[in-house]
Amino acid sequence: MNALSPLSPDAPDRAPFVAIVGATGAVGVELVRCLEARRFPFSGLRLLASARSAGRVMQVNGAPVPVEELTEASFEGVDIAFFSAGAKISRHFAPRAIAAGAVVIDNSSAFRMDPSVPLVVPEANGEALTGAPRLIANPNCVAAIATVALAPLHRNWTITRLNMVTYQSASGAGWAAMEELRHATAAALAGEDYAPQVLPHPYAFNLFSHNAEVDPETGYNGEELKVIAETRRILGRASLPIGVTCVRVPVLRAHSIALSVRFEGYVTPEQVREALTGAPGVRLVDDRVANHFPMPSEASGEGDVLVGRIRSDLGDPTGRTVALFVSGDQLLKGAALNAVQIAEALPARVPA
Amino acid sequence: MNALSPLSPDAPDRAPFVAIVGATGAVGVELVRCLEARRFPFSGLRLLASARSAGRVMQVNGAPVPVEELTEASFEGVDIAFFSAGAKISRHFAPRAIAAGAVVIDNSSAFRMDPSVPLVVPEANGEALTGAPRLIANPNCVAAIATVALAPLHRNWTITRLNMVTYQSASGAGWAAMEELRHATAAALAGEDYAPQVLPHPYAFNLFSHNAEVDPETGYNGEELKVIAETRRILGRASLPIGVTCVRVPVLRAHSIALSVRFEGYVTPEQVREALTGAPGVRLVDDRVANHFPMPSEASGEGDVLVGRIRSDLGDPTGRTVALFVSGDQLLKGAALNAVQIAEALPARVPA
Repeated sequence: MNALSPLSPDAPDRAPFVAIVGATGAVGVELVRCLEARRFPFSGLRLLASARSAGRVMQVNGAPVPVEELTEASFEGVDIAFFSAGAKISRHFAPRAIAAGAVVIDNSSAFRMDPSVPLVVPEANGEALTGAPRLIANPNCVAAIATVALAPLHRNWTITRLNMVTYQSASGAGWAAMEELRHATAAALAGEDYAPQVLPHPYAFNLFSHNAEVDPETGYNGEELKVIAETRRILGRASLPIGVTCVRVPVLRAHSIALSVRFEGYVTPEQVREALTGAPGVRLVDDRVANHFPMPSEASGEGDVLVGRIRSDLGDPTGRTVALFVSGDQLLKGAALNAVQIAEALPARVPA
Repeated sequence: MNALSPLSPDAPDRAPFVAIVGATGAVGVELVRCLEARRFPFSGLRLLASARSAGRVMQVNGAPVPVEELTEASFEGVDIAFFSAGAKISRHFAPRAIAAGAVVIDNSSAFRMDPSVPLVVPEANGEALTGAPRLIANPNCVAAIATVALAPLHRNWTITRLNMVTYQSASGAGWAAMEELRHATAAALAGEDYAPQVLPHPYAFNLFSHNAEVDPETGYNGEELKVIAETRRILGRASLPIGVTCVRVPVLRAHSIALSVRFEGYVTPEQVREALTGAPGVRLVDDRVANHFPMPSEASGEGDVLVGRIRSDLGDPTGRTVALFVSGDQLLKGAALNAVQIAEALPARVPA
């Protein structure tokens, strides 16, 4: 094993050698931070990015690590490769990484609907990792955050319908969108014009339907179709009816979702609260007296998904629908943290 | 008739004398602008506010009008009084205005659920004005905006369930909340702390469950309970099941609502689009190819409610539910404009 950067002094020699593709992106940076914060054992780390970013130096566990250009040869000696550089890069390079002996955890949409590739949120369907897969897909951020909250309900009862209405932050569109939100807002406060460059609509103090392409037939955008398909896969419910509306709001980081969950039988909000209490990855924030519920400002930087506003959905007079409101860090549980949790849950694997 | 301020030179002498209670507030200022923009005929205008604001001068149709302190004697000679200074002020002064001979159009929640007081959105239930009422309630902003879009559907088909998830702007909480959003955001961009003073939670690049008090029993907040009760009243459907989640987002002006409408029979999105085309108060913004749908930035300053994203709600496998997304100016259709439209729709009334 080619331990180029033995950065984790407390890791045994046999700890995996890790690569991050897209290391300088919003998710890539959080991947590095998650590996550090969780003391993920690795014997070396290779940071990969486009030629444009190569040569930059990132700090990892207090040591400088140069960013290298992603090439066909980048995966030599790599045991675990995290991909977060878009579906096109994943489609091209993930097979090469696997051929070089790596397990790939892919944050793009490239393989999420491939039935041979597990799509995993450890809290919801960690058992999908038991077959020692070589390629694992990390879900869409909304699907990941929602399924953490839904998993305990799904395990206890039969969900018959879901509705999700989202409040998605700039971070879901990367650094550039976060910068655009800051710049557009500063311009608005100064009374100046700002022409959108990253997102298609004015972002300062404004919101708009998600920027993913819209299917002209159904009227659903690509983000919504991903949320439906991936939530079904993660819950193992191929034909679960799911309505979804995805909206981009002027929040920098952390997505929120108004969830409405219909059950086959009569389930009370109290039963839902009980099922969520102490559930893995869930933190209840549901204080009616203090009017304190999940907020992006409190979800940002948090690994847990905040869940609150648990109440009967009065739109269903049969009393079988419960409404919830969740906030989760899009860059963490919605991306980097979930990927690292997948790596942690992989069957033990000694590098060759 | 005591024509103190003959500001509208083209109005006949018999045009009503108008008073605005809460004239310096966010809605009050828009009331003045709506009267101007719609060339509402009045023979005089009295601007009323608290002692704190009295003495200020506002421009109306190019002429200065001093703001007077609201007192028991303020309604002498007044034919139409618009109230927008909170429920407490309305409860105390509206009966006095009526006793002095005025018709009161009240923007507060004071009388909205009084069965003897019509609650009116002219596009939805303008017929409620036929009895020449002396007191008319102007609905909650979400209920007003939603019912403009719902009215044409309600007239064509039987709605059996509604779900509304809101994206409510700062303007709904008045000037002070709009200023707080600007100040908090400027502080965040400068990396400075800002302690919330008007709203209970940090507002910069953040969102939170609506700040109205939460009913500890049901978990619904006061805003949500108003939306349910008032939407039912306006549509004349006292027991219509309505689920609602009200959220304050960091948008300065104009509310948005993700609406899901279930019908008794099978109604297609195309039929819904047709019913909304040309409907009063509605402007379709539903361009799937350009990804152009209703946005607060385009609804702000507009009298019409923008409606789009008309599609089948995939959460209902029976195909009887249609999803929509609407944006409407909270200060206009959600408040001031609707009040002026009520005044315009009042049965002709010659001042004594």
